[in-house]
Amino acid sequence: MKELRAIEKLTESFRRLPGVGRKSAEKMAYAVLEMDDETSSTFSSAILEVKQSIHHCPKCGNYTENEFCEICEDESRDKTKIIVVSHPKDIAPFEKLGSYNGVYHVLGGVLSAVNGVGINDLNVQSLFERIKTDNVKEIIIATNPTTEGETTALYLAKLLEKEDVNVSRLAYGLPMGGYLEYADSLTLARALEGRKKI
Amino acid sequence: MKELRAIEKLTESFRRLPGVGRKSAEKMAYAVLEMDDETSSTFSSAILEVKQSIHHCPKCGNYTENEFCEICEDESRDKTKIIVVSHPKDIAPFEKLGSYNGVYHVLGGVLSAVNGVGINDLNVQSLFERIKTDNVKEIIIATNPTTEGETTALYLAKLLEKEDVNVSRLAYGLPMGGYLEYADSLTLARALEGRKKI
Repeated sequence: MKELRAIEKLTESFRRLPGVGRKSAEKMAYAVLEMDDETSSTFSSAILEVKQSIHHCPKCGNYTENEFCEICEDESRDKTKIIVVSHPKDIAPFEKLGSYNGVYHVLGGVLSAVNGVGINDLNVQSLFERIKTDNVKEIIIATNPTTEGETTALYLAKLLEKEDVNVSRLAYGLPMGGYLEYADSLTLARALEGRKKI
Repeated sequence: MKELRAIEKLTESFRRLPGVGRKSAEKMAYAVLEMDDETSSTFSSAILEVKQSIHHCPKCGNYTENEFCEICEDESRDKTKIIVVSHPKDIAPFEKLGSYNGVYHVLGGVLSAVNGVGINDLNVQSLFERIKTDNVKEIIIATNPTTEGETTALYLAKLLEKEDVNVSRLAYGLPMGGYLEYADSLTLARALEGRKKI
């Protein structure tokens, strides 16, 4: 039996989502078919709405539904301290800490030879503008601890050398609550390297 | 940081899909945000299209984009042999076997005291009409091997006693508590082969 064309099409769309394989995409498409009309049309318009109403904050690159993002607009935030992340979604974990009162800057990716992403493809120019206009004193680079994240951090740190700011990188080490026996050797080597006197 | 309203809304829609939790729904919503405009609008309209273009075949209850489903319209199919399933998705595994040349009948659910589904909520009346008009000789009940599927099979077999048809049930080659859509073809072929009169 050939698949219904409309199901096939929707299955293809679901497959573009992270962590969704052929089988689950098809199940999702059939689930949509079995939704009541209101639920499915809400779903359909929610997709359009996400794209229409959300854009990048022109200042930091975070997602926002307003002109600037709520963090950039927050008067109580210390604008002289910036955490640099790759993606808007990397902001949330810092905000959950509740202890960070500075602002952010979103690069919109990482340097990648494989994917052909160079420094000019990243949201870097505006970071240098912020350093001047907001009199930035500290920049904490928080790209992911992957090869590409590392490369980006080092490259950015190099570029920032000329500026009068403190540039740092998140510490590496064992995750809290983890077990030594499960730590991979790279993490363990970093934890040993970065050992602190107690 | 409060979640963006549009992301929140889309996350809620994704959560209604089978096997999608809060965390993955949110990841999916952000993935949509990062899609290019064409991909996301194709996605959005594919949802509407599935609901608009697909309906139940008035003869057997299977999904179709035409007036009748392709199986009912296929002249080479033996209309005197019917496999009764709960859902349209349960037809595909039989079609994959390639050895079954009869037709199907979709009940549209199973008897369920918990969900308040009685025999009148199922697509049963039209099955009896088909028995008359198509001179049906054999009915193979293939509801899922779950408690509710079993109950439905037995109840249906009881109703069919008055009719002049051979009624059988798939053999227990199927693992109890499993679902038809996940059965491998070999298991399913065995179950079909060893079907027992009930």
